Amino acid sequence: MESRIVATYLIETRYPLEVAAAAMAGEQSSGTFRPLPGETPELLSRYGARVEAIDDLGEADVPSLPHSRPPKGHSSARPRRARVTLSWSLDNTGTILSSVWSTVLGNLFELHHFSAMKLLDLVLPDAFADAYPGPAFGIEGTRRLTGVTGRPIIGTIIKPSVGLTVEATAALADTLISAGLDFIKDDELMGDPPHSPFAERFGAVMDVIDRHADRTGRKVMFAANISGDMDQMRRQLDLIEKRGGTCAMLVLNSVGLPGVIDVRRHSSVAIHGHRAGWGLFSRSPDLGLSYTAYQKFWRLAGVDHMHVNGLSNKFCETDASVIDSARCCLTPMFSRPDRPDTVMPVFSSGQSAVQAEATYAALGTNDLIYCCGGGIMAHPGGIAAGVRSLQEAWEAAARGVPARDYAATHQDLAAALETFGAGAGR
Amino acid sequence: MESRIVATYLIETRYPLEVAAAAMAGEQSSGTFRPLPGETPELLSRYGARVEAIDDLGEADVPSLPHSRPPKGHSSARPRRARVTLSWSLDNTGTILSSVWSTVLGNLFELHHFSAMKLLDLVLPDAFADAYPGPAFGIEGTRRLTGVTGRPIIGTIIKPSVGLTVEATAALADTLISAGLDFIKDDELMGDPPHSPFAERFGAVMDVIDRHADRTGRKVMFAANISGDMDQMRRQLDLIEKRGGTCAMLVLNSVGLPGVIDVRRHSSVAIHGHRAGWGLFSRSPDLGLSYTAYQKFWRLAGVDHMHVNGLSNKFCETDASVIDSARCCLTPMFSRPDRPDTVMPVFSSGQSAVQAEATYAALGTNDLIYCCGGGIMAHPGGIAAGVRSLQEAWEAAARGVPARDYAATHQDLAAALETFGAGAGR
Repeated sequence: MESRIVATYLIETRYPLEVAAAAMAGEQSSGTFRPLPGETPELLSRYGARVEAIDDLGEADVPSLPHSRPPKGHSSARPRRARVTLSWSLDNTGTILSSVWSTVLGNLFELHHFSAMKLLDLVLPDAFADAYPGPAFGIEGTRRLTGVTGRPIIGTIIKPSVGLTVEATAALADTLISAGLDFIKDDELMGDPPHSPFAERFGAVMDVIDRHADRTGRKVMFAANISGDMDQMRRQLDLIEKRGGTCAMLVLNSVGLPGVIDVRRHSSVAIHGHRAGWGLFSRSPDLGLSYTAYQKFWRLAGVDHMHVNGLSNKFCETDASVIDSARCCLTPMFSRPDRPDTVMPVFSSGQSAVQAEATYAALGTNDLIYCCGGGIMAHPGGIAAGVRSLQEAWEAAARGVPARDYAATHQDLAAALETFGAGAGR
Repeated sequence: MESRIVATYLIETRYPLEVAAAAMAGEQSSGTFRPLPGETPELLSRYGARVEAIDDLGEADVPSLPHSRPPKGHSSARPRRARVTLSWSLDNTGTILSSVWSTVLGNLFELHHFSAMKLLDLVLPDAFADAYPGPAFGIEGTRRLTGVTGRPIIGTIIKPSVGLTVEATAALADTLISAGLDFIKDDELMGDPPHSPFAERFGAVMDVIDRHADRTGRKVMFAANISGDMDQMRRQLDLIEKRGGTCAMLVLNSVGLPGVIDVRRHSSVAIHGHRAGWGLFSRSPDLGLSYTAYQKFWRLAGVDHMHVNGLSNKFCETDASVIDSARCCLTPMFSRPDRPDTVMPVFSSGQSAVQAEATYAALGTNDLIYCCGGGIMAHPGGIAAGVRSLQEAWEAAARGVPARDYAATHQDLAAALETFGAGAGR
């Protein structure tokens, strides 16, 4: 079978579904709204996008997004929602990810036919796995770099996000690592500002990490935010490698696909993918793209860790959506057992020992990075007790013991459940 | 006065407006939802985002976007809409555009407080003009490269978008240039695919352009789509320069800020900014960013031409929005008269001689690129007559003569108005 790029969309339209799907296929391949001189039947059959399936989801009351237009003479038509699957020949794009982006997203969101348009899924042929290296470390590699097995990698974000001096950052890192954390990261707002230049901050934190590694034999992973201009990212990446760092963080939506791909191609460290700005694409149920489709672009580009929010988070995402996202990260994209393919989901935002049980129950694995802020810092027993409470919560989950029961013999977990649990006020 | 980054948002929230604005400021600077140990008053006053203004726009009936949460005990509160202005010290980000992106967009769209969130405007201090080169050519430079004065640069997009062989593309370019066009461009779907490799296509089209330049003394501008991985973009850019091309096209949303900035820094040709995917950010009135804010990122990154759609377009954008976008492109960003600052708006999508009069009337200038497809190809007098009809339409507009009147003595314009005008069916 010819391998094709396959994309599935949620649409809403007042056009007949077949007409609407054909408009999508035309706009995103050989055609336009009118037949063209050079658009021969041969060209169309080879390069035209194919409508593979239309799944009618029924009528909607009113158009969900404004400014769509009904077909002429059908101004009273009610919109229908549907799931539409299109496919394209690899001849249209080759295996260039930017071309795929323009092809499966591109102008679709502006077509006047539609009052909802969301890319739900994207399936890329294995040829893309030959063209892009994908994650260099993934789950196993990240465990190897951190020396953590049998439980999630437990981490935190250096806060306040901005404003700390280099010295204050290093002192905080020392406190956090002394408390037993496996992983620390810059906030996405912290890049290379005058008050905390990247090179100085990174060096100071690595000094702390190395000192602790001499003592414990384990090197804490520091996801240092290198997001910036290309030359700057390359320089900072070089610095990380030279100084023995094990991870670089990229704000994916600000760095873009070619930027992430370039960093991956020149990197020997894990790439931590932050999704700041994800709400731009996800917040409307009628517009954008699903996390399922979104994370595939970045995984192929070479990211090792993908943020997925967390259960009972401080943002507006539902728990079901968070778990779906994490499952995506843990699902292989290609039939290529020779290299890492899945990536580590990163849970963060309002996380504490409280959510471990439900997270494990929903996911069935502890292959994840679990980042807590207040859930560590605000533990009544102090930061080290906060970290222990998380280790205990995940131990309990992995053993199938309810957290409440485990807490009977584990006082740090008990204090965390008491402090952060339902009814404790959030 | 200290120069600060200033961003204005449309918000909708069930929280008191002051609380909601403070949540935005906190999330996007030093703070989180809870006070932090290191968050001293000094740090907050220096690095905290400042709420500069809150402009109450009144109550909404129901939350526009789902999953927002009201404050505790206020579940029956009705949402209010407001315009909120925040500002940040340059100390937070330095002049790194990716850091600005994370700061003014970032997590805002996911905060549970909000049922609408749109970045309306962004004002950057002149320090950014020192950090980034901005457009190398802008309006004057593009006119110089094309040799077109006193009217818009008239162009077309090579169609079918995909599927033409290199030979067929060159033959079509020959036809188009023979007909008198100033500018041709690849479709955003056409990159470097197996059936039309970039290097071969570019070379073949440049051969045609050079042949005509020998005859006419004017080199037609070819916006060749180099969007792809970084190494590939650099190679293709080198090829364009070596071969005497004058323009490279980038699909901005797929290439990303660092990619565009890098191309600009290594480029000696004009950069044509395609906005495919713009609907992701614009299609919902309650989510995303305005074109005003959007185009500032790309102009600073160094783009010379920015797509703005066109009047009576085939997409779902209103004419008023199109004109607003074009005006943005023509409005200076910085107080730096020493270099190009404004960029050429690119009109396209369903354009013909018909819209010239209204476009000129609304804009008051012909400093624009005017791309037509069917409006040239489907002219009853042929392609050359189609091009002449556009030149005549813009002549009439610049002279303040109604197109209908001018058409009395200009038959190509007359035929265009007859074929493409209101009532002719579109």
